[in-house]
Amino acid sequence: MTATLYCFGESGNAYKAALTMALCGHDWAPRFVDFFGGETRGAEFRALNPMGEVPVMVEGELVLTQSGAIQAHVARATGRMAGVEDPEVLRWVLWDNHKLSSQAGTVRFLANFLPEEKRPAPVIDFLKARLNSAYRVLDAHLDGRDWIAGGAPSIADCACAGYLYYPEPFGFVRGDWPHVDAWLSRLSAQPGWKHPYELMPGSPTDRQ
Amino acid sequence: MTATLYCFGESGNAYKAALTMALCGHDWAPRFVDFFGGETRGAEFRALNPMGEVPVMVEGELVLTQSGAIQAHVARATGRMAGVEDPEVLRWVLWDNHKLSSQAGTVRFLANFLPEEKRPAPVIDFLKARLNSAYRVLDAHLDGRDWIAGGAPSIADCACAGYLYYPEPFGFVRGDWPHVDAWLSRLSAQPGWKHPYELMPGSPTDRQ
Repeated sequence: MTATLYCFGESGNAYKAALTMALCGHDWAPRFVDFFGGETRGAEFRALNPMGEVPVMVEGELVLTQSGAIQAHVARATGRMAGVEDPEVLRWVLWDNHKLSSQAGTVRFLANFLPEEKRPAPVIDFLKARLNSAYRVLDAHLDGRDWIAGGAPSIADCACAGYLYYPEPFGFVRGDWPHVDAWLSRLSAQPGWKHPYELMPGSPTDRQ
Repeated sequence: MTATLYCFGESGNAYKAALTMALCGHDWAPRFVDFFGGETRGAEFRALNPMGEVPVMVEGELVLTQSGAIQAHVARATGRMAGVEDPEVLRWVLWDNHKLSSQAGTVRFLANFLPEEKRPAPVIDFLKARLNSAYRVLDAHLDGRDWIAGGAPSIADCACAGYLYYPEPFGFVRGDWPHVDAWLSRLSAQPGWKHPYELMPGSPTDRQ
């Protein structure tokens, strides 16, 4: 049974789910969601996910939303990665949702995808400063470790990396964080890895 | 074995863990962390939790951080609540971490606990607007439901309620959201429930 992932290239949260499926060899296909055209605010999408967000995974009768819940399902179904049953994996998935991706996704949107005259500089600066603390925590954690939890890639790696391969500037510079940089290179060397704009349909170039 | 929870009254994230332990009858005792005196930035605390945050739970050899990871452990250990094994519970714990508590905790801090002249109005307004969308999602979800997932309180209820009992103004008004209001009343009627300032040591009155 092929899972359908409602997603679009610019969504790092969708990428977490897509990358987990790609690395685990889960059978899936993307379904493009026209976020920038307003699809996630429409009645049809809200009926599928009242949270109004991608990713959404539909697999037979199963409908799952929230990237971490989809990742947990794929890890369990394939047995190819550690999932939320491992407390250390769960801890870093939650930290990512709380401190890293939530803020990185917001600031990247505000600083790149809003019209220039609507970009709120004080909010962007505030979020960038908070994110620097998060990058520092992640870089220190990866000093002396190949992977975030345990000896192999887990859903925590796919979660924390969610926004860190994107080219649009939002204050994250790989070179500033050598242990994060090396870890991102290890992850992108895994069989099945693809860049978000290759793994999912839609990218900023489509709107130019 | 008594679990020690590193916490302080003002932390809604610590409250999620404390409330889960209280409602599940888990054996625990609080250990006050002097957040406002800088304890979480000190070397001793960072050695315990490099993320620099409460809550931290220490139970024998087990050290857990991130409220959701502690909640998951307590649910599993006591068998008294649904935990992250239930995809719908996990989904709402993640949503809370991503969209509700992370922003509510930040805006409540900025709007109440920073010196007045340092409170960044554009950031506060931005976060309040985003939180309104989150309250709307939660209120709609609780229309016709007693609990967030399934027929009894779960760790998702303790997560989403983390910041919603506090008296300090941060833009959340119970009366504006009737289904959230009724659900908070149901939760606070559960045996063992206590207000965060009663369940954990420390409150703003200590600093006046």
